[in-house]
Amino acid sequence: MAVKVHGASMSTCTARVLACLHEKGVEYEFVSVGLADGAHKQQPFLSLNPFGLVPVLEDEDLTLFESRAITRYLAHKYKDVGTDLLRLESLPESASVNVWMEVEAHQFNGPMQALIYQFIVNPKFGLPVDEQVVESNSEKFGKVLDVYEERLSKSKYLAGDYFSMADLHHFPYIVYFMTTPKSSLITSRLHVNAWWEDVASRPSIMKIKEGLKFD
Amino acid sequence: MAVKVHGASMSTCTARVLACLHEKGVEYEFVSVGLADGAHKQQPFLSLNPFGLVPVLEDEDLTLFESRAITRYLAHKYKDVGTDLLRLESLPESASVNVWMEVEAHQFNGPMQALIYQFIVNPKFGLPVDEQVVESNSEKFGKVLDVYEERLSKSKYLAGDYFSMADLHHFPYIVYFMTTPKSSLITSRLHVNAWWEDVASRPSIMKIKEGLKFD
Repeated sequence: MAVKVHGASMSTCTARVLACLHEKGVEYEFVSVGLADGAHKQQPFLSLNPFGLVPVLEDEDLTLFESRAITRYLAHKYKDVGTDLLRLESLPESASVNVWMEVEAHQFNGPMQALIYQFIVNPKFGLPVDEQVVESNSEKFGKVLDVYEERLSKSKYLAGDYFSMADLHHFPYIVYFMTTPKSSLITSRLHVNAWWEDVASRPSIMKIKEGLKFD
Repeated sequence: MAVKVHGASMSTCTARVLACLHEKGVEYEFVSVGLADGAHKQQPFLSLNPFGLVPVLEDEDLTLFESRAITRYLAHKYKDVGTDLLRLESLPESASVNVWMEVEAHQFNGPMQALIYQFIVNPKFGLPVDEQVVESNSEKFGKVLDVYEERLSKSKYLAGDYFSMADLHHFPYIVYFMTTPKSSLITSRLHVNAWWEDVASRPSIMKIKEGLKFD
């Protein structure tokens, strides 16, 4: 039985899981959750994820939520097929992948999310752009990207000279970010920009980023 | 050669790593980083972690940062000694541990950190408590804890009936939180409170929480 992903194609967290499945070459069934109707905040969805967030993965009698836990599960379950995303055969390499996965979650995600809300989410709900939030988070994000620039001048990808889950976890927000007036924070940094162009040209990413549109 | 932890005893992220080492029964060397003097924002510390944050782990020629990546590394390296924190022998169990580790990082940490800043960090710098931030984050945190209460009514610990890394990752902020006027968000929830009393009474946690004082 194919694994089942409950999600929405515009959702960055859903995209993370779908790209992982494509990297692994694993077939899946996609169940679209009606975010606009608030289906994720009601039953029966809440019995899948009590926090009311997409995505959810169902694999026979196992139900998992939190996108970064789902991708980790998939990388373990399908460790011998497709792209080696967690480098489980090498303790130093898997440690490096984990460091940069945590950097995504704890250094990159915060200011990035704040900027995406200001430029893309809030306007859809008629909320004004808060210039102070934009400025403080642009500055914060620029400092994070300075570290990335230095890192990516020494290795082709974040964890080392191999594409890994650390790179994959970053892609969905960057797709949206590149449509904002602050995209030069990426394009002005030589190595960050080259890394992003490389990541964005992978077949799995090209396929899934088509869905990342906030209509 | 013993692993070396660069950190500060008052730091929640440092405490997470130290408790993990105690659960594993692994000896370590502790190198105190002078946060009050800004030593973490200068060389030579920045060559260990370019983000300028504690803790950092050095294990021979491997240098790792991000506390949650360090604990994961230690759990893999010392998987056969001490507490089984990641349940690596069972794919469904390790998946459950990962789900609740991500819940800590993405649902629990945000509102918890906001409340700790309001009640403990800001006052030390002469900043006033922002009642609006306290109220919105208390409400948000309460909803997260409602899910925890339901979960902990069905299993003794977050991932299942076994203490795991998911539980361990929560403890440092809760130690500080229990000293704030909002501690009843924990104590008023029967199962969350029983879980916390159990976690807080573990020898590793009792040992490390002594250092969690914001002077």
